Amino acid sequence: MKAWVGTYSGKDRVTGEATKGGYAKHIVVREEFVLSVPESLDKAACAPILCAGITTYSPLRTFNVGPGSRVGVIGLGGLGHMAIKIAVAMGAHVTAISRSADKKDQALEYGAKDLLVSKDDKAMQAYNNQFDVIINTIPVKHDFTPYLPLLDIDGTQVLVGQVGEMAESNSVPLLLGRRRVAGSLIGGIAQTQEILDFCALHNILPKVEMIKMDEINNAFERLKEGDLSHRFVIDMSSLEVA
Amino acid sequence: MKAWVGTYSGKDRVTGEATKGGYAKHIVVREEFVLSVPESLDKAACAPILCAGITTYSPLRTFNVGPGSRVGVIGLGGLGHMAIKIAVAMGAHVTAISRSADKKDQALEYGAKDLLVSKDDKAMQAYNNQFDVIINTIPVKHDFTPYLPLLDIDGTQVLVGQVGEMAESNSVPLLLGRRRVAGSLIGGIAQTQEILDFCALHNILPKVEMIKMDEINNAFERLKEGDLSHRFVIDMSSLEVA
Repeated sequence: MKAWVGTYSGKDRVTGEATKGGYAKHIVVREEFVLSVPESLDKAACAPILCAGITTYSPLRTFNVGPGSRVGVIGLGGLGHMAIKIAVAMGAHVTAISRSADKKDQALEYGAKDLLVSKDDKAMQAYNNQFDVIINTIPVKHDFTPYLPLLDIDGTQVLVGQVGEMAESNSVPLLLGRRRVAGSLIGGIAQTQEILDFCALHNILPKVEMIKMDEINNAFERLKEGDLSHRFVIDMSSLEVA
Repeated sequence: MKAWVGTYSGKDRVTGEATKGGYAKHIVVREEFVLSVPESLDKAACAPILCAGITTYSPLRTFNVGPGSRVGVIGLGGLGHMAIKIAVAMGAHVTAISRSADKKDQALEYGAKDLLVSKDDKAMQAYNNQFDVIINTIPVKHDFTPYLPLLDIDGTQVLVGQVGEMAESNSVPLLLGRRRVAGSLIGGIAQTQEILDFCALHNILPKVEMIKMDEINNAFERLKEGDLSHRFVIDMSSLEVA
């Protein structure tokens, strides 16, 4: 079966049938769009590197994160936990930022030095001007303003989670510290190959849970209930059975 | 009389009296905070360089505007007209952005190559991805989203007008073009000296209207009625008469 790579429910260029995207068993791909998965990476666990991995790697590269960079990561879900692991491997001093202290152990396990509780005003004030880059993975409509004072002068808060409406904000902390808000969306093929190789080199893998195809509705319900710190990976061989 | 430079209604360090700020006739200033006004600059007209001039010069410098840069300037008031003149003198290709076409002649006179009417959807679409930097001088609560698609990848919209609440926005054009929103507030002493020298070199002066002290209430009413393209400068010698 031929399908246009990545596209689900597109139109097959040869047969005219609906394309199956990621659910296709065989696809024809132009050479420039083929990625090489390093041997050492677990094939199941590495799947989310192609989404959560590149989505967080790309802005960390764009904003020159490296040894000594002070990075904050808002949210500890699929995107957030990869942002922490990657930034730590880049040599950055990473602080997780979360609504509650519940996930502190998890954050430290990923390599963060600390967890900043965003509901704790005093803790937030103590972190004023302490970050060069903040990766904001919040996936719902919200106000980015409360996180701006955490940035040092010329620091950038990068939105990677919410794609759509943002709540009212306030320009004062943008103006006072010449701070910035940016967006970043997945990444290109060259950087996607980079992050696959980078994850192999640094032994980074997303936290995943393998499910069978007929468990997908239950997994979706668990996602909606929220705050999962891992990604589901579907075992495509289970599609035969279903 | 001694006063703490710049501060109005502060406490004089010596006499304890209320300081007169910009209305003082004599002040004692620490040497590091004294600026040199080039001989060639008209003393009255150059006053707003210390506010509107540095406020727009600083972000143009921060975001590396120079020959070949594509700069948009939203608003044609006190800040906007200086942003256009300075960016043009830096060698940028400058486009004024305004709600209506009424100010096109004025914009061209300041050195802009074109005026983009922000209410004209087709015109806005034709300018998609056309700017490296946009200086947003809008001084009221608004949504910065409609101007984001005008930026090329990695382009920045700099807020310099509104200090406070911003309306709801949308992250899509931030994410899609890896675009940015930044803030910038006046500027430091070193850059303020730079812009005074730069204005002298390039023969740039703000558009001003001199008023006497007893005309200040009338001037304030005219400001409130809106959309003045110049700054008022108070002739301090008229304070004696009043």
